[in-house]
Amino acid sequence: MNAEIIAVGSEMLTPERLDTNSLWLTNELNQLGVEVVAKHIVGDLRERLAGEIRRAMDNAGIVIVSGGLGPTEDDVTRDAAALALGRVQVCHEEIVRGIEARFARMKRVMPETNRRQAMVMEGAEVLFNDRGTAPGQWIPFEKGAVALLPGPPYELKAMFTRECLPRLKGLVPPTVIRTLTMRTTGMSEAALDEAISPIYSCYKKITTTVLAHNSDIQIHFRARCASDAEAGAMLEEIRPKIEAALGDFIYSRNTDPLEVVVGRKLLAAHATLSVAESATGGGLADRISSVPGSSAWFLGGMVTYSRRLKTELLGIPADLIDLHGPVSSEVTGAMATAARARTGATWSIAVTGNAGPTTDGDSAGLGDFYVGIAGPAETTVTQRVWPSPDRMRVRAFAAQLALDLLNRKLGR
Amino acid sequence: MNAEIIAVGSEMLTPERLDTNSLWLTNELNQLGVEVVAKHIVGDLRERLAGEIRRAMDNAGIVIVSGGLGPTEDDVTRDAAALALGRVQVCHEEIVRGIEARFARMKRVMPETNRRQAMVMEGAEVLFNDRGTAPGQWIPFEKGAVALLPGPPYELKAMFTRECLPRLKGLVPPTVIRTLTMRTTGMSEAALDEAISPIYSCYKKITTTVLAHNSDIQIHFRARCASDAEAGAMLEEIRPKIEAALGDFIYSRNTDPLEVVVGRKLLAAHATLSVAESATGGGLADRISSVPGSSAWFLGGMVTYSRRLKTELLGIPADLIDLHGPVSSEVTGAMATAARARTGATWSIAVTGNAGPTTDGDSAGLGDFYVGIAGPAETTVTQRVWPSPDRMRVRAFAAQLALDLLNRKLGR
Repeated sequence: MNAEIIAVGSEMLTPERLDTNSLWLTNELNQLGVEVVAKHIVGDLRERLAGEIRRAMDNAGIVIVSGGLGPTEDDVTRDAAALALGRVQVCHEEIVRGIEARFARMKRVMPETNRRQAMVMEGAEVLFNDRGTAPGQWIPFEKGAVALLPGPPYELKAMFTRECLPRLKGLVPPTVIRTLTMRTTGMSEAALDEAISPIYSCYKKITTTVLAHNSDIQIHFRARCASDAEAGAMLEEIRPKIEAALGDFIYSRNTDPLEVVVGRKLLAAHATLSVAESATGGGLADRISSVPGSSAWFLGGMVTYSRRLKTELLGIPADLIDLHGPVSSEVTGAMATAARARTGATWSIAVTGNAGPTTDGDSAGLGDFYVGIAGPAETTVTQRVWPSPDRMRVRAFAAQLALDLLNRKLGR
Repeated sequence: MNAEIIAVGSEMLTPERLDTNSLWLTNELNQLGVEVVAKHIVGDLRERLAGEIRRAMDNAGIVIVSGGLGPTEDDVTRDAAALALGRVQVCHEEIVRGIEARFARMKRVMPETNRRQAMVMEGAEVLFNDRGTAPGQWIPFEKGAVALLPGPPYELKAMFTRECLPRLKGLVPPTVIRTLTMRTTGMSEAALDEAISPIYSCYKKITTTVLAHNSDIQIHFRARCASDAEAGAMLEEIRPKIEAALGDFIYSRNTDPLEVVVGRKLLAAHATLSVAESATGGGLADRISSVPGSSAWFLGGMVTYSRRLKTELLGIPADLIDLHGPVSSEVTGAMATAARARTGATWSIAVTGNAGPTTDGDSAGLGDFYVGIAGPAETTVTQRVWPSPDRMRVRAFAAQLALDLLNRKLGR
């Protein structure tokens, strides 16, 4: 069965806002085996929206309309849907009393305009809203149903989950969907796809999605079958083939990012981590400490953005910096070793580099980066060059490489 | 004049991808005085797309179709547009030779399928593509024009700018658009809108956009008038009224974020900055050092995420921490003072807090935050409580507050 999604609201026709409800709704519908075949964003015009709803009903069995259920003149969804289906609306006194009670709890009197929200189309089922004043509507028609949902994501998601999902399960033939996820780093999207597309393209019942963000790639394999056993078996069949193709570029067999994977290993080993950041300027510590509970294994560290602080906070000899430059294997290694000694951590990561846009007169070139990892046994330094003018991207690459290198040291 | 935008491609109907070309296109069209009245995303189905193009032509004078111009069977935009307009297509030998030359430069032979890309509708103007193989088309019709553009943003933007903008300027009555931007912090979006909507709603020729991101709000006033003088005068009329309403919540009179504003003041005063971060875990340093050229005024600092590092790196007495707790006015003030002394910076910022999800047994409550600012004259500490379960959001609030407090100390 197919679906179309219509988002209503002029604010989504500006250069600043996108309709993001539809991503969440698409995922929910896909999980039921329903494909979304078109999405529309329209302004607050009744006739225009009515036309859009009518055409969506021609093309799909499920039509989801989000937004435009508020109490003002601008909120045209109720009227547009009634126009599209040629049905009358009646005031639903129970809804009026519910909205009045909601206002009463806030010690306010319901404005008369809110009565609009109690208008319900003939033949529609009211979808109760426990997170706002706007009720939704479920309108069966010959091919399926039209659902009117509120625009705010917090209200829409709750109403869809509680009210629409059970009704949709009655409309849609049962399908089982199981998903296998992997994450990789250190491989380009093109190289990865070249390595695995000959494998996944043989599985017609598996939908493969490759999502690259900086140098981190998530791969989702979604098997859609008649039974759970069939879906599970298919994923177990593809899994070893993908693992063989990608080898140790795979760092996670679920959606966990590198910092979570690293944290879990450190915690299991009763080990701790500190950082000494130059080029990443705090971004690595920020990413690590974003993990809830990271204070159990992350101690903190130094942001030695200036040459002076490398000497004052880490004790790197000024003549070592003069001799090799602040962006060098020697200085980076010394920073990692010193950070480990000064913080008492089991492991320390140091990052130096030139993120640009200029090199500030350093001897190292634009895009040159060094990552040092100091551990119980040794300190190692790895060099990379990313000649990109995009400062933030290069900094993100460096933080990702640093976590990847530490993760490899901690063992798969 | 109105426009509709149609994005073509099944990948934009998945839960992972949004059509982002339309945001850029909307901005370009708005600059010409053209309003976007609907946006559509459709899959790679010829008849379905043809219907969508026909309907868009009924509703708007300008129809922009992006994507689906590649060489494969899946690329249906050319055929769909021909079907929608009821016109035949002819092979354009000059385009074929251009594509052949492109392949020859890569030492490859053009696959036969690429000939599809040379099919041009009768009456259409060819839009040259210098960044890919797919040419676009400009198809005048009675009310305006339909433009077919390639999907990759890098190709689309170049083609739109070079080929479509001049043609659109011929279609659209001339308008001058001037923009006034301000940024505020410390005020909720609702409170801000309540303060300024009585002002801006009196200006029918000014479009006001309020964009809130965490506690940072950008306000855009876009005056669309017949002449530059009129637009400028209108903005100069509204400016002092808005400034009076928002007072010193305004920190920027352009799009510069707080870290850029702070950096400019520090640089002008030949002053430097360092940080001592606990709860923000490096996020404040990351944000500050993201400013290109920040190494001229940002020294770095310490991420004392653990209690131990507060003592070891900053010399905060363990009994002070035991007495008041690590999240306290006393410890935060001591951290700021110590960071300033140890780094030799003119100003230092310290942040402590409980970002959650748990309080790790600290005496301070969930969402309690302290920001300390140490300067040449004194150290001051400010407390805030953000009882939100969203860890990343609370950390962003704290970094924003820290920069706001420093910015106020540096003088408007």
